[in-house]
Amino acid sequence: MLKNDSNIEAVRHSLAHLLAYSVKQLYPGSQNAIGPSIDNGFYQDFEIKGTLGEDDLPKVEQKMKEVLKTWQGFERREVSEAEALEIFSDNKYKQELVREFASGDKPLTIYTSGEFIDLCKGGHVEDINAINPDAFKLTKTAGAYWRGDEKNIMLTRIYGVAFNSENELAEYLEMLEEAKKRDHRKLGEELKLFFMSDSVGAGLPLLLPKGETVKNELMKYMRAKEEARDYQYVATPLLAQRKLYERSGHADYYLENMYATQEDEEGNQFFIKPMNCPHHHMIYEKLVNSYRDLPLKLSEHAGLYRHELSGTLTGLIRMRGPITQNDSHTYVSEEQVEAEFASILQLFEEVYAETGVKDYWFRLSLPDFSKEKYAGNKEKWEWAGNIIRKCLQSAKADFVEELDEAAFYGPKVDVQIKNVLGKEDSIATVQLDIVVPERMDLTYGDTNGEKQHPLIIHTAIMGSFERFMGFLLEQTAGKLPIWLAPEQLRLIQVKDSKELDSFVDKIATFAQENGVRVSVDRSNESVGKKIRTAEMMKVPYSVVIGEKELEGGQLTPRIRSDLVVEGKPEASYPYENFITTIANEARGRVQKSSL
Amino acid sequence: MLKNDSNIEAVRHSLAHLLAYSVKQLYPGSQNAIGPSIDNGFYQDFEIKGTLGEDDLPKVEQKMKEVLKTWQGFERREVSEAEALEIFSDNKYKQELVREFASGDKPLTIYTSGEFIDLCKGGHVEDINAINPDAFKLTKTAGAYWRGDEKNIMLTRIYGVAFNSENELAEYLEMLEEAKKRDHRKLGEELKLFFMSDSVGAGLPLLLPKGETVKNELMKYMRAKEEARDYQYVATPLLAQRKLYERSGHADYYLENMYATQEDEEGNQFFIKPMNCPHHHMIYEKLVNSYRDLPLKLSEHAGLYRHELSGTLTGLIRMRGPITQNDSHTYVSEEQVEAEFASILQLFEEVYAETGVKDYWFRLSLPDFSKEKYAGNKEKWEWAGNIIRKCLQSAKADFVEELDEAAFYGPKVDVQIKNVLGKEDSIATVQLDIVVPERMDLTYGDTNGEKQHPLIIHTAIMGSFERFMGFLLEQTAGKLPIWLAPEQLRLIQVKDSKELDSFVDKIATFAQENGVRVSVDRSNESVGKKIRTAEMMKVPYSVVIGEKELEGGQLTPRIRSDLVVEGKPEASYPYENFITTIANEARGRVQKSSL
Repeated sequence: MLKNDSNIEAVRHSLAHLLAYSVKQLYPGSQNAIGPSIDNGFYQDFEIKGTLGEDDLPKVEQKMKEVLKTWQGFERREVSEAEALEIFSDNKYKQELVREFASGDKPLTIYTSGEFIDLCKGGHVEDINAINPDAFKLTKTAGAYWRGDEKNIMLTRIYGVAFNSENELAEYLEMLEEAKKRDHRKLGEELKLFFMSDSVGAGLPLLLPKGETVKNELMKYMRAKEEARDYQYVATPLLAQRKLYERSGHADYYLENMYATQEDEEGNQFFIKPMNCPHHHMIYEKLVNSYRDLPLKLSEHAGLYRHELSGTLTGLIRMRGPITQNDSHTYVSEEQVEAEFASILQLFEEVYAETGVKDYWFRLSLPDFSKEKYAGNKEKWEWAGNIIRKCLQSAKADFVEELDEAAFYGPKVDVQIKNVLGKEDSIATVQLDIVVPERMDLTYGDTNGEKQHPLIIHTAIMGSFERFMGFLLEQTAGKLPIWLAPEQLRLIQVKDSKELDSFVDKIATFAQENGVRVSVDRSNESVGKKIRTAEMMKVPYSVVIGEKELEGGQLTPRIRSDLVVEGKPEASYPYENFITTIANEARGRVQKSSL
Repeated sequence: MLKNDSNIEAVRHSLAHLLAYSVKQLYPGSQNAIGPSIDNGFYQDFEIKGTLGEDDLPKVEQKMKEVLKTWQGFERREVSEAEALEIFSDNKYKQELVREFASGDKPLTIYTSGEFIDLCKGGHVEDINAINPDAFKLTKTAGAYWRGDEKNIMLTRIYGVAFNSENELAEYLEMLEEAKKRDHRKLGEELKLFFMSDSVGAGLPLLLPKGETVKNELMKYMRAKEEARDYQYVATPLLAQRKLYERSGHADYYLENMYATQEDEEGNQFFIKPMNCPHHHMIYEKLVNSYRDLPLKLSEHAGLYRHELSGTLTGLIRMRGPITQNDSHTYVSEEQVEAEFASILQLFEEVYAETGVKDYWFRLSLPDFSKEKYAGNKEKWEWAGNIIRKCLQSAKADFVEELDEAAFYGPKVDVQIKNVLGKEDSIATVQLDIVVPERMDLTYGDTNGEKQHPLIIHTAIMGSFERFMGFLLEQTAGKLPIWLAPEQLRLIQVKDSKELDSFVDKIATFAQENGVRVSVDRSNESVGKKIRTAEMMKVPYSVVIGEKELEGGQLTPRIRSDLVVEGKPEASYPYENFITTIANEARGRVQKSSL
């Protein structure tokens, strides 16, 4: 048996044929369209005769295993257009493809396996035994337009996963299961952080009080960090005329990603901003005259909107808006750029440590000069790239370099992470703009009174607060650090009694006065159920309060497992000490409990 | 001489005739269009032969005074259409009006004064001596479309003011002068708070760091106030589908005030929210099941956008956006409504006292049932109006009642002020919604498990933060209270010296650490000039620091005049005491300095 990695693509492709034939056997009259191999598996699209849902997949899988036993291999044959049309006379999708491919310069090829014939360019297993019947699984169905065009008929797509060994399949399915549990959309719903509304529309999440608390904590945190480094906050409108984007150059690169309003009766049309840069550049013009005004550091937490197709939307990770970027622009002279860039990289490391982000690395994104989109002269691009590289090296940062990932206006550093599915994703960016200041004629007078253009460092340490929240939820499986947890302490009252009511109220009030986000559970559930509910909601601290606690005045906190320092025994505290400790932990942004 | 108040309209109208004739004498070939009396004066529109600017107004005024001596009065005559067309053969505007009026049922009338004939319906002084030649003044010119239609020719409009006595004129001009100084647009520019950008567009102000500081202080203040009363903050998107506004009923009343995006390739169209209510109602649906969940208090500081015509825009007071409302919705049962409404009125009084807003009063805005727009049944409207009236009376609030000022969904209380020009304006509102919960089918289960609709109290204590800032600037002439001043302390360093530099830096750092917004003036200007600049910028505290201060270690603060407690002598303090005091004053939101 031949089961190496280079072969797995062929296995997956072959399984798509097997799937097509099996479905046609079970649902006579069904037509198969296309069926390629994909990451981790394969799919096949069908116009199904009858109905086929996810409940039917085990039956199809069983059929595939039976058919597989009867197949010997894949036999290739070249055919004429007429012959092909005859062979696929009962499949309008294949006929359409035949007519299209026939006009090309390559011959039409068909592959036969058992009784099944498919129009195909090849890429199957050479030895049918390479397909391990216990290492594939059909996972789901979905609707898919024929040729991806929404004007065409909607076909049924069946997805499968396939590996060389049963173990690999089991591992992958387990990872999928874990990813599902950590999916921030699922956690968002369970932890009452955010939701989508049919009336409002797709890609436009609404943050519930708990979700807003997380976002607000992140915003307050970033503002304090930045203000300590002399960033100045501004507030600019979401709308602007096209003129602004023509000046900045975004009109050439970005217009299709922007929402525009309908023209009003006066002929006004506005564009909803997808980034803050052009607005901040207007403020630069207003505030800067001389080199004495530099560096100028402007910052804003504005909710941006970007035009996205429905199919691409993913919770808080990919949305239409509000994308609340923690967006800042540092305007510097050439002499200042290196020091400022280095200081920003340091801020990155500081913030990621305090928010508990793990497993990230930097990507130095450079231009590919064979593409037209990179404006300005090559030497300046190289000068800028070198400065950034030097900063990354001095910071001893873990980084890779990649071409054709730069912004249109300059090279940048992207912060890369692996998401729950193991896919690489950018969560933040810092960019060195060497083009726009000249294009927009942003200037300052240097020490000789000569007109100079500044450089601009575009920074978004957390990317967008929504995205960052989504990412943190997936990385922590919803167990946010104490300072970010929307509910930090839950008081579980054992039973109804006047004395207990007032004791619990006293503790809750003390917690609130100390800035601890507290809730009280006085529902009619059992204590066990209440404890489980607090666990499900990932509350860092919960404490059961009954007669014993009322009399002894000592509380025994239950600590969320990930916060417990290993080997530390359970202990009891007077409530004031206990609550003051939580408040200090939140302020100190600790990752582990000290209780 | 007949100089009573009822006559002043006639005086002003007569002066419009006098202005028309005088301009035609000075600019032969000019044509006068229309010229009515208005508040405090009059205007007249012209197609000027030649050029006439504001510099020419004294000359025109002089001419008017000369001509006035020669006029005896106004002589009325009825004329036929043909006759009128003949008389006004050299004035195409009058001809157009003649043709239009001739088709009506009233006779055409012309008025002759001296050698001047005008088409006019009457309303002049009976005695020409009623016009006091020393009690009128031409104030400005402006462009105005013929008949107010932008498709027509742009005429030159000359404005004048007129009163019965010289004293009244002088008083009025003085008030105009003061209003001009207090105009928040002028102050916004001078104090570097905000500006408008041609590239961004009209009605879309950009807040500079100092303006953002004021807005942010107001936002933090309101959030702390509301959170102490169990309001929960949420964050909802600016965009929503039309469906949302159809559910809420706003589609019937408000669509023309909203910006809508162009449809994208998937047919998605979004509306930019002009208020938060419908979004918050979606959150109500998500969070509320039973009476135990009430009252639910949701709040959000969202930047809203409203479609406005260019001509109506006025700085931060009337803008397209962002209108950052401090918007909250309190969802209550019938039994809770009175207590919650009363508590909100109390919050109003508290906030207005602490921000230093003076001279405001409440307006109970009720429906006018002869109009169709007020939805729901009359009894419920009366019940709601009675509850609000009762709350206002219990609070011993100063209030008036007015019909046809209610929202389409319920009666409301508006907070009224007089602006710098003495015109009444609403700056905030609290509304009792008796219609939308039923329309959107918002429900909760009562103690019997029966389905009920809540009531909603819509509240915006500060209206919008931008508007509130604009209003505060005008009321205080830019002298914001200490806690709101973007720059609270300015250190004026007398001369360059290493020792002084480090002394001043030490003080500045101590101020920053204590949360005081401080700046240092080390420019090359004279000390006198620096003091005047600090005064011009309305900085609450400034302090001159030279050798004397360095040696003695005592600072003598200069206190902004409005903050000084009368009779308190100037004093010196060690810098730590001085700065700690400012920090405490800001925290305490005091209106007077304790230094």
